Amino acid sequence: MKIRSACMRRWNGWGDSNNHYPLKPSGLAFVQQRLGRAEPLPDAEMTAVVAKVPASRLPEHPSVDTRPETRLRHARGQSLPDWLAMRSGEFERFPDGVATPASSGAVRELLDWALEQGITVIPYGGGTSVAGHINPPESDAPVLTLSLAGMDQLMDLDTESQIATFGAGTPGPMVEQQLRERGYMLGHFPQSWELSTIGGWVASRSSGQQSMRYGRIEQMFAGGRVETPKGTLIIPTMPASSAGPDLREIILGSEGRMGVITEVKVRVTPLPETESFQVAFAPDWETGKELVRKMIQAKIPLSMLRLSNAEETRTHLMLAGHEKLVGILHRYLGVRGCGDSKCMITFGVTGDKSQARYVLSQTRKHIRQAGGVMVGRLLGKKWEESRFRSPYLRHGLWEHGYVVDTFETAVDWNRVTSAVETMEKAVRDNAGDGEQVHVFTHLSHLYSQGSSIYTTYVFRCSDSYEKTLARWRVLKEAASNAIVASGGTISHQHGVGRDHARWLHHEKGELGMAVLDRLVNHFDPQHRLNPGCLIENAPRTIR
Amino acid sequence: MKIRSACMRRWNGWGDSNNHYPLKPSGLAFVQQRLGRAEPLPDAEMTAVVAKVPASRLPEHPSVDTRPETRLRHARGQSLPDWLAMRSGEFERFPDGVATPASSGAVRELLDWALEQGITVIPYGGGTSVAGHINPPESDAPVLTLSLAGMDQLMDLDTESQIATFGAGTPGPMVEQQLRERGYMLGHFPQSWELSTIGGWVASRSSGQQSMRYGRIEQMFAGGRVETPKGTLIIPTMPASSAGPDLREIILGSEGRMGVITEVKVRVTPLPETESFQVAFAPDWETGKELVRKMIQAKIPLSMLRLSNAEETRTHLMLAGHEKLVGILHRYLGVRGCGDSKCMITFGVTGDKSQARYVLSQTRKHIRQAGGVMVGRLLGKKWEESRFRSPYLRHGLWEHGYVVDTFETAVDWNRVTSAVETMEKAVRDNAGDGEQVHVFTHLSHLYSQGSSIYTTYVFRCSDSYEKTLARWRVLKEAASNAIVASGGTISHQHGVGRDHARWLHHEKGELGMAVLDRLVNHFDPQHRLNPGCLIENAPRTIR
Repeated sequence: MKIRSACMRRWNGWGDSNNHYPLKPSGLAFVQQRLGRAEPLPDAEMTAVVAKVPASRLPEHPSVDTRPETRLRHARGQSLPDWLAMRSGEFERFPDGVATPASSGAVRELLDWALEQGITVIPYGGGTSVAGHINPPESDAPVLTLSLAGMDQLMDLDTESQIATFGAGTPGPMVEQQLRERGYMLGHFPQSWELSTIGGWVASRSSGQQSMRYGRIEQMFAGGRVETPKGTLIIPTMPASSAGPDLREIILGSEGRMGVITEVKVRVTPLPETESFQVAFAPDWETGKELVRKMIQAKIPLSMLRLSNAEETRTHLMLAGHEKLVGILHRYLGVRGCGDSKCMITFGVTGDKSQARYVLSQTRKHIRQAGGVMVGRLLGKKWEESRFRSPYLRHGLWEHGYVVDTFETAVDWNRVTSAVETMEKAVRDNAGDGEQVHVFTHLSHLYSQGSSIYTTYVFRCSDSYEKTLARWRVLKEAASNAIVASGGTISHQHGVGRDHARWLHHEKGELGMAVLDRLVNHFDPQHRLNPGCLIENAPRTIR
Repeated sequence: MKIRSACMRRWNGWGDSNNHYPLKPSGLAFVQQRLGRAEPLPDAEMTAVVAKVPASRLPEHPSVDTRPETRLRHARGQSLPDWLAMRSGEFERFPDGVATPASSGAVRELLDWALEQGITVIPYGGGTSVAGHINPPESDAPVLTLSLAGMDQLMDLDTESQIATFGAGTPGPMVEQQLRERGYMLGHFPQSWELSTIGGWVASRSSGQQSMRYGRIEQMFAGGRVETPKGTLIIPTMPASSAGPDLREIILGSEGRMGVITEVKVRVTPLPETESFQVAFAPDWETGKELVRKMIQAKIPLSMLRLSNAEETRTHLMLAGHEKLVGILHRYLGVRGCGDSKCMITFGVTGDKSQARYVLSQTRKHIRQAGGVMVGRLLGKKWEESRFRSPYLRHGLWEHGYVVDTFETAVDWNRVTSAVETMEKAVRDNAGDGEQVHVFTHLSHLYSQGSSIYTTYVFRCSDSYEKTLARWRVLKEAASNAIVASGGTISHQHGVGRDHARWLHHEKGELGMAVLDRLVNHFDPQHRLNPGCLIENAPRTIR
């Protein structure tokens, strides 16, 4: 029996339209106090936008859907410009059609047809990109969005080698559900998990909340099938190899520029015996940072570890809404040395019972030694319940006239604190017109070498969509410049897409950029696949 | 103060000429019983070989050493054909000169000079390749061997981010010695550790005995500097990134075809509080294999785990030489259910004391449940003492007229047993003339997905070098065919070089081979760097 997702997807925002998570009164009061009261901008109606979708430029094809609503629903991702486009109804561009092939063979045929006809092709997974990956580029060529949604099944499970084969369009919940029925799991949990797909994770090199235990997608991706303009690339599974450069590492992060990933083989694990998420507090940032650094460098096999800075801790507790409980918590922690500058640490303990006991005792020892305070499982449970809810926060704030966005990077430990400061300052200081920006940060993916940094910022809508977008552009530019100035990657977990392409050369260098160009030119000499993504513009000069 | 290696290197074999590990009488008797008595072949004298070195074809350069002995000492690696060439004195080809630059700038200058002059360049680390990586190719162009031996220092240590920067020519012992003085270690211990270099490990994607704890070189290599014909490639350090394909993974395994790696940044760790190696026995292969598979899949954080098959177990105990002790061991194990078909398991426990206790208790539980027997620390200590001694075994056998070689791969768990059988059979059945081959195998690098397979085989010298080499060629071809027929990589830890290049397309596919071609052509359009290595012949047709 085929398993199907029951999600009723919003056309102009995040997630399932049955899910509503409005801002709680105390949360709203907190935001208003920080930023001033705000006015929401008016939302467009879908019927009005559908009426504006222009005629398709595609030649007829029996498998291509050119209906306006379908094209509308595949025109944008989840970046802030995408959000503003969807809310205002000003989409700018739509794909000329959407195809949803159900097999690698069908993808092959569509791709060959598109190449022959001079059609631009955008491979489409869950449409959750926050960096403009799936937006139709400005182009004279018609644009076909090639959705992998028809390939959402577990195709094979080798329990001895613990390798599962999935259709590339399988979204997170269906990955886990199909594995769970067999006693296995993948463990890739990005915030976008509800909608994002296994092929999209590979194409954008994504990372999930429990990467400490299960690895980034790089460690999970064992092989698979890619339909490229040059032919079919099959990557066989081998546990490790010294035989030359690793082709998987070229497909990982290829962002649709080298081919359409159709089948993904991943390393899976049996369901764990036990799992809990817990919360502790450190008295201040520097203490907290040193504590989590030492924990990760001591190789304690936690499944998750994150550290919120003081402002995020404060914001998180305010938005939670349980004023009375939170008040008690503040007093309790204050007595134990964790006052206004306290930083929240969230961690996950996963495994068999003896492993969990060992991990917990090690963790407790480190936290105690650093002067931190463990507060039991309640807050950890809260985190677990709402772990995929952050993307809905944009709705809750938008209804009251606020905009929220995030940006992220990863740097070595010796640059973590200065990078956080530089990144926060960049958005705090650049809203213009004396506007306040509420900024907070956490470290969410820790490595012995360094950490990812995830910064969230909230600001008020201007009095028009145009001005709101213009304000965001200034902030995004400042944030991105701050990231590269701090020696960070332009993205630790969201990829490059179109929005980050301008900054990529800072980490790849000119010679490295030329390598990427070469690879794209090799697989797709006509630049039909997702042009403008990953590498800015069309062909860069090859040295 | 600069630390220098005190190794007095053999010109015609492995390692330090002060080290002798002759075969013990019981070991010799065992080999003679298996293969029959043998006659050693006569060794050449160095002076005679030096006299045969032809005039250098290189233009004069103040930094290039063209003395015959220097060229002789850089002409061959450690493959079996290399051994036979060194022992017979029939080297075939020598580099025309050797340069030993002391900085990236000096490498750059030499490389530019060589490109300008049409000189073929072979980057040279420790000269320990067993796949023909550093052998001068047949060519009309003069050949310059570019040794990194002058760059053997720890250049920087960031203890907060745990990143060390080394000159690429730093050999294993000097890597560890320079780190140990600061309280750190790298933990990359291939069998070639005495001589192989950190740059060579990156170029050939190598793996060390304790990769379970410290990772393969892929997990250690954080960035660095590569002097390529197209310019200097700097790879900055970042703990992780989703920003497009990973350039490190293109340099890893590049085998000198894309540039000269001059500086290597690696992830290091503090010295562990405690470490021990221990031995256990499983009653038979299938039980042992299932046991070690379950241990690795249960994520027990051992630092090493290997399983010898019954023949390797037998051979290992015979060669150890302690007849009386071994007799007692056999009887003890026999009583406890581990008889003739018993398989030895060696494992490493490394970390702080509480971690070690936890790991050991988990390990014990698994072994007991599988009907295995732990035998305390003595055999583990023996393994530790001789962990880098295997390459010397070739000397011990050679003196009595026997030849030893190895081959290796990695396959998913569901193919491990059949691959071992196919690989062993390939060499057992193909020596010709009714000759016996003594073959044994172990699994040495375990992954949740599968395992590496390392097979050793011993056979008698023929009555001439030519015939001995011819016999080896037949065996090597049969072994390599068996590997690819089993779905294995042509090398898990030794790279491709020239000897494995013919088999590489089995795992990369035609399209993948074309990608490698593209990359080589991009960095080195004139094919001046190590031609014939990794990719057979000169330019492959680019599709």
